[in-house]
Parts: sequence; structure tokens; C-alpha cells
Amino acid sequence: MKKIEHLGIAVANLQESIIVFEKLLNTTCYKTEEVTSEGVRTAFFQVGASKIELLEATNPDSPIAKFLTKQGGGIHHIAFEVDDIEVEIKRLQALDFQLIHESPKEGADNKRIAFLHPKSTNGVLVELCQEKN
Amino acid sequence: MKKIEHLGIAVANLQESIIVFEKLLNTTCYKTEEVTSEGVRTAFFQVGASKIELLEATNPDSPIAKFLTKQGGGIHHIAFEVDDIEVEIKRLQALDFQLIHESPKEGADNKRIAFLHPKSTNGVLVELCQEKN
Repeated sequence: MKKIEHLGIAVANLQESIIVFEKLLNTTCYKTEEVTSEGVRTAFFQVGASKIELLEATNPDSPIAKFLTKQGGGIHHIAFEVDDIEVEIKRLQALDFQLIHESPKEGADNKRIAFLHPKSTNGVLVELCQEKN
Repeated sequence: MKKIEHLGIAVANLQESIIVFEKLLNTTCYKTEEVTSEGVRTAFFQVGASKIELLEATNPDSPIAKFLTKQGGGIHHIAFEVDDIEVEIKRLQALDFQLIHESPKEGADNKRIAFLHPKSTNGVLVELCQEKN
């Protein structure tokens, strides 16, 4: 893993949380983006070499809606940047990590992504991501 | 905030989790440290400019023991590096963020630290940390 690409935080109200995180991080939100396939609206902040991604559900079936119902708002996932996502998926499968996505899918922020199942990573939802060319 | 200094992950069994995270991150744990005042044993991994810190409770009153009981293992807190922790505490208090520690205390890994209350940060437990000289 090259670096923490971003940390995903589930929020109930994106506009209200953008204001909170702009104050907390002392920086402005540089982008918002809706990912229809995931049922989320996102907002990004740069902190050093990493990003904070706020995630709001756009429908009740969104994974973020389910997370909010179960746990309330909070840290939802950690995303690591990798050079070659197919190679990394194969490396992790060979080590018996369980992948939610066995081949990469489209993510927010111009990325190809794949999630690992938290059962195999101590309860942590881990995302792999690779910048698209 | 300068960067994500580390991400704290609560685990039930430090030795077992070190093995999991060494495989996941494809790097070796470079340090373990016990912080008696917090009731935790920690293990550190470097990922880019940030660290992953695993936290195991050393007694049932440890905040990590309580977190594990309530939520199971998973991401416990996010720590941001700051240049001057006193200045940052004052800046955040002026913006009505609630500090758990209104003055810095000793943390793991040669740091002065202060935690913000998750009530004021959308359910996210946020740590400020400054490297000691």
C-alpha cells in the first residue's frame, strides 16, 4: 500500500458536515460528487497527501444509510492507494483476504476501486484504489 | 491540520492483528509500545506519510476495552499532526469544538496529544498530535 488515499466518514447531512469539517480541518471542501451506483453524495478535503471524504446516503438502500442506522455517523472506511489494483487484489486473495469486489469497479474521484470484507481485516472496511489514467 | 499522522484501530488481540496487518499492508510492524496511562498496548506500521496504530486494551477500564464491547474491532480514531497543539486547541475551542483534553497530554510515539469530543465532530473521535522536540 503506497499511502492512505482517503478516509471515508459517513454523515447524515452533507451540507451541515461540510461546514463542520471546513472548520475542523481549517481548509475548504474542494469538490463534491454524486456516485449514483453507490447511492452516495461525497465531499472531499485535502489534508497533507491524503483526503477526507464525507459520504451522505442518497437513498435508504445505500450502504451509508445502513451504516448510519446501525452505528450513527463516524469513520466508515479507509482507502489505500495502490499502483496496480489487479496485482494487489491477487496478492491479498493469495493471503486469504476476502474481497467484496474481486475485480475493480468505478469509484468517486476518478478511481478504480475494490473493497475488502471487514471480516478478514479486524472489522475495518478497507478500500483499494488506483487513479485512472 | 498538516496531515493524517495516524489512524487508530481497536483490536482484541494485538499479536494476531499484527500478523493480519503485516499481510494487508505488505510491510512489517516497526514498533510496539505500551501506554500505561491509557491502558493500551500499541503497534505501528508506516504507510506513506501516515501510520496505522493498532490498539489493544490492557485492562477492562481502558477506552479500547469499552469500544470493543460496544462496537467490536474497527477504526477507533483519526489523528492529525499539527505544528502547535496549544494554538490548535485554542483555534478549535473558539469555533465551539468540544475538547476532551483542554491542554495537551503525553501520548504514544513521542507525541503531545489532545482529543476532541466526537459529539462535536460528527461522531468521529479526532486526536491532535504534535511531535515532541
